[in-house]
Amino acid sequence: MDKNELAIKLHAEWKGKLSIESKAPITNKEEMAIAYTPGVAAPCLEIEKNEELAYTYTGKGNTVAVITDGTAVLGLGDIGPSAGMPVMEGKCALFKVFAGIDAIPICINSKDPEVIIQTVYNISKSFGGINLEDISAPRCFEIEQRLIEMCDIPVFHDDQHGTAIITSAAIINALKVTGKKAGELKIAISGAGSAGISIAKMFMRLGFGEIILVGSHGTIYDGAPYNNPEQQKMAKITNKNKLVGTLADAMKGADVLIGVSKPGIVTQDMIRGMAKDPIVFVMSNPVPEIMPDLAKEAGAAVVGTGRSDFPNQVNNVIAFPGIFRGALDCRAPRITEEMKEAAARAIAGVIPDDELRPDYVLPDGFNPLVVKSVAEAVMEAAKKK
Amino acid sequence: MDKNELAIKLHAEWKGKLSIESKAPITNKEEMAIAYTPGVAAPCLEIEKNEELAYTYTGKGNTVAVITDGTAVLGLGDIGPSAGMPVMEGKCALFKVFAGIDAIPICINSKDPEVIIQTVYNISKSFGGINLEDISAPRCFEIEQRLIEMCDIPVFHDDQHGTAIITSAAIINALKVTGKKAGELKIAISGAGSAGISIAKMFMRLGFGEIILVGSHGTIYDGAPYNNPEQQKMAKITNKNKLVGTLADAMKGADVLIGVSKPGIVTQDMIRGMAKDPIVFVMSNPVPEIMPDLAKEAGAAVVGTGRSDFPNQVNNVIAFPGIFRGALDCRAPRITEEMKEAAARAIAGVIPDDELRPDYVLPDGFNPLVVKSVAEAVMEAAKKK
Repeated sequence: MDKNELAIKLHAEWKGKLSIESKAPITNKEEMAIAYTPGVAAPCLEIEKNEELAYTYTGKGNTVAVITDGTAVLGLGDIGPSAGMPVMEGKCALFKVFAGIDAIPICINSKDPEVIIQTVYNISKSFGGINLEDISAPRCFEIEQRLIEMCDIPVFHDDQHGTAIITSAAIINALKVTGKKAGELKIAISGAGSAGISIAKMFMRLGFGEIILVGSHGTIYDGAPYNNPEQQKMAKITNKNKLVGTLADAMKGADVLIGVSKPGIVTQDMIRGMAKDPIVFVMSNPVPEIMPDLAKEAGAAVVGTGRSDFPNQVNNVIAFPGIFRGALDCRAPRITEEMKEAAARAIAGVIPDDELRPDYVLPDGFNPLVVKSVAEAVMEAAKKK
Repeated sequence: MDKNELAIKLHAEWKGKLSIESKAPITNKEEMAIAYTPGVAAPCLEIEKNEELAYTYTGKGNTVAVITDGTAVLGLGDIGPSAGMPVMEGKCALFKVFAGIDAIPICINSKDPEVIIQTVYNISKSFGGINLEDISAPRCFEIEQRLIEMCDIPVFHDDQHGTAIITSAAIINALKVTGKKAGELKIAISGAGSAGISIAKMFMRLGFGEIILVGSHGTIYDGAPYNNPEQQKMAKITNKNKLVGTLADAMKGADVLIGVSKPGIVTQDMIRGMAKDPIVFVMSNPVPEIMPDLAKEAGAAVVGTGRSDFPNQVNNVIAFPGIFRGALDCRAPRITEEMKEAAARAIAGVIPDDELRPDYVLPDGFNPLVVKSVAEAVMEAAKKK
């Protein structure tokens, strides 16, 4: 049985990957009279007097909604809200397994950003945090930004920030392995969608030298017209020399290649055209922009992918469980840039310097130190404001 | 420690009465690659091709959303969405404990019926059914009706129909105990809100004689102006003789008194004014319209309340778990009047005729036969259309 067949078989057996259980015993009328009416009236009235007490008497403080409109599911594109649900359920399962967080999958039956924003806002009081998932660019930027402003709980679009945080951690450690300097890096990012743009922003925040974003029509540069307002913004603050060209052009002499684009679009010659000991993270999934062995053969010093069967996997479970754990535990109203940076540095710091190797710049998501370190760093950063 | 203190203490310990668990094992990368990416893509693509397969590959078919706007929570009134959450969590716990259904509590941060309708509709694809809860009248009628028309899954406002179904079951059995005839009954219903109106409608469907609804300003009769359009409708089809008067007037000579109104508003004299061997269900909670011992002393033949410490408890757990279990299992798109009637008859039928007594006309919600009988009857009725 191949892996697809096995996934189909198991999903049909599970009929949903989540089970919602009662923590309150309800085996007789006395117990029911406490967990439900009339006993439940007492905590209700306490919350009515002071809404903060929802964190004490309900699950709000440990509950995250995982919400999609199904427009950018995995690498599958716009497959619709119902078809996105297996991913949302899986993400919810990961929230519990990695961080002990109760997560609820919700799909929204509209692609209209305004409808999505209002719908999420209208149900937001039920939750302690909101994880937006698999919403297509550029809609995802506005949806996330507006919801951050409207809600008093953290709203986080993992597809944008998760990959950016983990890739940043990988680069922090790869610099130690290669001896390159953060401020002197030349970086090409293949893919100018939500992930690519978010990575570029985070890299700039971390002071990672010069960045060129490359979209499907070539480099993003100031002067060209862009429908996507985020690309427009990035054109002004990246690609300092206004290079107009292909991905190959952008990669010439670059120290770092980040791929969040399409399978197989990077050749060995393109790697050979990079600076000495290039750092290559090619995260198109399941087929990366170039296979790791080919990249290494062409001279790449550090190579990472999104795949579990190669070293240095950029796997979102490294970041989001700890980030939400930390944000919920300190009841942060937002996940700030400082908290994201702290998460990246905490992930990098999980591997002691003397254990770093080209094939080991990112920790394994199953390493329990990861969630703990990230959560603590995020809480610390939240306190600082 | 009194019961309120105990409820407060336990709710603080639980910090939420629900836990969301992964049914999929995720202990290593291989397992994660099936429950999440890349394996999860296969069921996603199947559902994209055929949306019905959401019932096979996700939890949709066993998941119910329990949704409130917090406007009519228990007997507490409009305490707001956050303060209603302990009740919603409790209801979700009951769904699991009584019927094995995964239920998700959601509070909506708006009182505008249009906003509520759109919000619920927008998230409805995530669920196999929707249980509306504690939404005030008359808004609840429009909200439920519109959602029933818009959604392709069952939408059920338990406060309206649950009590009506169980009270109907109680009357069916009380008739056997008292020897009264359904078609010859004179019935007074104290309370003309959502529960009272829903009970009146169901009684009419079951052919329970003549009905007079009594609101806070007296009997509901044709000719008076009503702001509540449902009361307007009921004025035309109940109170045949257009009795204008008080609850005491409506109860004169009546065989049945149903109370869904206010504590202590029924006196022994009012009971004494009823027909011989009256049937009295007084469900104001926790303090009924008249205490059962007083009602009996005044001649009531069968007495029921909403309380667990008296016989014949009208407890919603007798109805909704089996109704949703049946509706989900046969994937009924709606809960029809036929299904509600079948549920009432199934509840009544749980008690064999030779076991019926004045103090035992309703089965205990914890009797496992109840969910089973109701679910089977509902499925059977759903098939008939």
